Amino acid sequence: MTASSSLPPADARRRPPAAAALPFGKPERGPRERLYTIIFEADTRAGRLFDLSLIAAIVLSVTVVVLTSVAPVAARWGRELVALEWFFTGLFSVEYAARLYCVKRPLRYARSFFGVIDLLAIVPTYIGLVFPGAHVLIDVRILRLLRMFRILKLTSYVHEYGMLGRALVASRRKILIFLSVVMMVVFLLGTVMYAVEGPEHGFTSIPTAVYWAISTVTTVGFGDLTPKTDLGRAVASLMMLLGWGILAVPTGIISAEMTAQRGLGMPTTRTCSECLSEGHEAGADYCKHCGAALPPYIYD
Amino acid sequence: MTASSSLPPADARRRPPAAAALPFGKPERGPRERLYTIIFEADTRAGRLFDLSLIAAIVLSVTVVVLTSVAPVAARWGRELVALEWFFTGLFSVEYAARLYCVKRPLRYARSFFGVIDLLAIVPTYIGLVFPGAHVLIDVRILRLLRMFRILKLTSYVHEYGMLGRALVASRRKILIFLSVVMMVVFLLGTVMYAVEGPEHGFTSIPTAVYWAISTVTTVGFGDLTPKTDLGRAVASLMMLLGWGILAVPTGIISAEMTAQRGLGMPTTRTCSECLSEGHEAGADYCKHCGAALPPYIYD
Amino acid sequence: MTASSSLPPADARRRPPAAAALPFGKPERGPRERLYTIIFEADTRAGRLFDLSLIAAIVLSVTVVVLTSVAPVAARWGRELVALEWFFTGLFSVEYAARLYCVKRPLRYARSFFGVIDLLAIVPTYIGLVFPGAHVLIDVRILRLLRMFRILKLTSYVHEYGMLGRALVASRRKILIFLSVVMMVVFLLGTVMYAVEGPEHGFTSIPTAVYWAISTVTTVGFGDLTPKTDLGRAVASLMMLLGWGILAVPTGIISAEMTAQRGLGMPTTRTCSECLSEGHEAGADYCKHCGAALPPYIYD
Amino acid sequence: MTASSSLPPADARRRPPAAAALPFGKPERGPRERLYTIIFEADTRAGRLFDLSLIAAIVLSVTVVVLTSVAPVAARWGRELVALEWFFTGLFSVEYAARLYCVKRPLRYARSFFGVIDLLAIVPTYIGLVFPGAHVLIDVRILRLLRMFRILKLTSYVHEYGMLGRALVASRRKILIFLSVVMMVVFLLGTVMYAVEGPEHGFTSIPTAVYWAISTVTTVGFGDLTPKTDLGRAVASLMMLLGWGILAVPTGIISAEMTAQRGLGMPTTRTCSECLSEGHEAGADYCKHCGAALPPYIYD
Repeated sequence: MTASSSLPPADARRRPPAAAALPFGKPERGPRERLYTIIFEADTRAGRLFDLSLIAAIVLSVTVVVLTSVAPVAARWGRELVALEWFFTGLFSVEYAARLYCVKRPLRYARSFFGVIDLLAIVPTYIGLVFPGAHVLIDVRILRLLRMFRILKLTSYVHEYGMLGRALVASRRKILIFLSVVMMVVFLLGTVMYAVEGPEHGFTSIPTAVYWAISTVTTVGFGDLTPKTDLGRAVASLMMLLGWGILAVPTGIISAEMTAQRGLGMPTTRTCSECLSEGHEAGADYCKHCGAALPPYIYD
Repeated sequence: MTASSSLPPADARRRPPAAAALPFGKPERGPRERLYTIIFEADTRAGRLFDLSLIAAIVLSVTVVVLTSVAPVAARWGRELVALEWFFTGLFSVEYAARLYCVKRPLRYARSFFGVIDLLAIVPTYIGLVFPGAHVLIDVRILRLLRMFRILKLTSYVHEYGMLGRALVASRRKILIFLSVVMMVVFLLGTVMYAVEGPEHGFTSIPTAVYWAISTVTTVGFGDLTPKTDLGRAVASLMMLLGWGILAVPTGIISAEMTAQRGLGMPTTRTCSECLSEGHEAGADYCKHCGAALPPYIYD
Repeated sequence: MTASSSLPPADARRRPPAAAALPFGKPERGPRERLYTIIFEADTRAGRLFDLSLIAAIVLSVTVVVLTSVAPVAARWGRELVALEWFFTGLFSVEYAARLYCVKRPLRYARSFFGVIDLLAIVPTYIGLVFPGAHVLIDVRILRLLRMFRILKLTSYVHEYGMLGRALVASRRKILIFLSVVMMVVFLLGTVMYAVEGPEHGFTSIPTAVYWAISTVTTVGFGDLTPKTDLGRAVASLMMLLGWGILAVPTGIISAEMTAQRGLGMPTTRTCSECLSEGHEAGADYCKHCGAALPPYIYD
Repeated sequence: MTASSSLPPADARRRPPAAAALPFGKPERGPRERLYTIIFEADTRAGRLFDLSLIAAIVLSVTVVVLTSVAPVAARWGRELVALEWFFTGLFSVEYAARLYCVKRPLRYARSFFGVIDLLAIVPTYIGLVFPGAHVLIDVRILRLLRMFRILKLTSYVHEYGMLGRALVASRRKILIFLSVVMMVVFLLGTVMYAVEGPEHGFTSIPTAVYWAISTVTTVGFGDLTPKTDLGRAVASLMMLLGWGILAVPTGIISAEMTAQRGLGMPTTRTCSECLSEGHEAGADYCKHCGAALPPYIYD
């Protein structure tokens, strides 16, 4: 029995493993340690209540940021929204201070991904305080963008994100190879369109043509730029078939392969009576593991 | 040894299981019980006839609703369409009353999903009667919408919808995780576009930018909003590659993996020396057609 | 050894099986029989030459139809194109007559799919002869459409189309179920948009709204109709996520499932030294077929 | 018994196999041989340094070509960009000469794919020298296009491209069959749209209609052409459902099949009674972690 290969029990999978915060250092017994178990761990009632409250606060504060950007709403409830924004900033500041206080290695926390996110959650509002004249439109939009990063605080609550992230990292080489082929195709065919259509049809530079090529190969097709010449449309058709084909051809081939080889290629629940292996195709007559004759298949 | 798995008999899968209506209570023998077997069960000839007639009535009544919304048609055949609408409403009212009459627990039926749908199928026309001045355009459109819900009455006739629904429910956690990641990406990158492009280029608020971001990541690309700045187009390119890549990368990697890693499941050109059949998996040991031992697989 | 399960030898797969024309009746030895082997069978040199010439003729005649529709080209080479069209019509007429002549049951051929296609290939030009004043634009376009059906003559030459067709027919129930769910969703959500946006924003009738809904759920996104209200855009966002999600969620879940369960779930070429079974996951420690310990995995 | 399958050692997969250049002939010991090992092989420190420098030079020179096409940038830094272009041309000329010098069969190299690419990398700039008046806009764009082909020099550095290419070549027949069906559908339905909508709605010729049909079936949907008639929109809806359905139906059916048919390959909640690990396949007999026999699978 290998201890290392045991999956955590089902309900633990829904809570962030306590071990996740260990790098920051759990303090010894005392008020700090009690605060630590509430904030960083979720096995106690208080811990779970804290987590749920914080998730609610994050979602509400993001809603406030979103509403602030809608001009009619901001015009009507501007004051209330500013007040709410200060409320949440205060809340998150207290939470941030509490986190710094109750870990053994606060600097380590402050430099971690979540530490940076937690800081970004409160900094924009203070910037607005310190630079009162900074109500230039672009600054306000960037401040709102920084506040939106609070959304990322939610990711620590879902265990599967970590698994998803690790799966992506494990496949990074294949992903990079695949994407590099797509980028080379897009650069080459985009430059072809630039050469064929030219600035008089909207393809003013190679970067513009590449932007159009990406929108075509990914089948998005905004339509803000479109080929007007016959050769351009022919090249565009090729690119559209390529972008869609990369999705359709493997899917279609695998499906067709599975059904067409014998017309009955899908694995079924059919069982071999000799070696009891399962998954034999509906069209198979002999067991592929032991060679014995399979019982007939009762069709759908 | 794994327990045997028997598929339900072929024809039973095509009829809704009689058990589906049991929660409402089948009455004892008598006129109610005969009506029950016709309406809720489909093993008798009358039952099947009822089902087919009702499906036809549903499809025709939906067609009437659709045609009523087309101005030229409504102008030309307005009276006939209203008459047809009353006919169907009458028909569905009689059906609804019959259902309430012949189950043992009519309240339970009235509160179930299908009970609500059946009620929605007849209410709009009566509303039009009770509130004769309610021909405000928006009301008429909402009444048409309510009538469209009759389409859902069709779902009780297809057994597989239940299986599909249960499969979705079983995978709900994974689906939610996946969609929540997409929503976070869309909110963050949408807000980036809002900050980069700004209201002067159409991105008037964060919700608007998020709507655009969704149309881009899902590769729909309406084109009613498009990035005009270089940085905006670069971010848009990233989002397009992300949305399309989420479809293309797993498909491409799984296909490439299956062929490039000496995929054992893919059919190959391997030939059985006994019966000369082709297409055996690289991993099979015995010919699935004749049972003879297959020669070893010579790679690529 | 089951004779019925042998796949035809590789090169036969590339030629249409001679059996395909048997339903029309192969005549006894004589000039008709020689003509039959040339036209309907492809094992002789003459037969193969006939096939290739006919494919070339089909492709060239379709090109002529396409070119005739391009106004500048038709203006410049009108006469030549008409002459070519008559040449091909004559060629296909001779071929059609030859087919009728050399089968035992000509009526059966004339009523079959390919018989109808072959007739459609020559009829339009004769119609133009019989009705000389029929040069109304719409008639000409329909005649061109009918000529385009010659393309379908190509399908008898590719054996795999038959397999593809049979695979589709075998899965027809699942395909219909799937598409009916999509149609119901599209009708309901399209009507919602009709109710929410209304004619003043372009959604003039339910059919129009359903057309827009289809273009959105299938991620095509023409952009000729777009939602303008906030609620409309929210509903549109839902539909876009649905249409794209139906593609992305199964793909993503299957991929993530395969890698994330143990982080190392993909089948590899790892071999069990006891029972020599392959395809064990990188993260497995014991063979799932015989229970023996697996040798360690050398990582990527 | 299947032959063992060993993966090539990990680090070798990241370097192009030295054998790839053998067709050009490795010279005997001497200065040519030392140059050969640097340029064509990557096992020595000098060889790897050469490779990295060349990759950097390729990427930088492509950036210069891209920047030159952006009018404001070219206006501002025109001279510097021209100088950089000459620098890179000179660099690649020296590299090309070195390659010709150090292989035994230079003509063979010059005629190979990479030989042609390497020549294309330097020719455009010399053309600009020889034909000084050739600053016609279209020529400049084509020269830029030729320079973009330098991107393809990068492909010799990634081993997996070869595998990807071979996988594509192996599947070429299936890919061609699939694409030919799509092209026939697109030609037929495109011509239908041409007949139904006609030039007055933008569908001026069959090629234009086919271009629109491709943009619709591949779900790109530029929107530069859209159907205006009801019949046209109905045909368009069919095409959109077809193009999207080809992606969605197999994916959805395979997923539903795997979960609804008691898919044997999917991980389940089955638990090993010895080591308490979860997620064993329904079809596995032994725990892949500890080797103990798994209890039978109780279905759904």
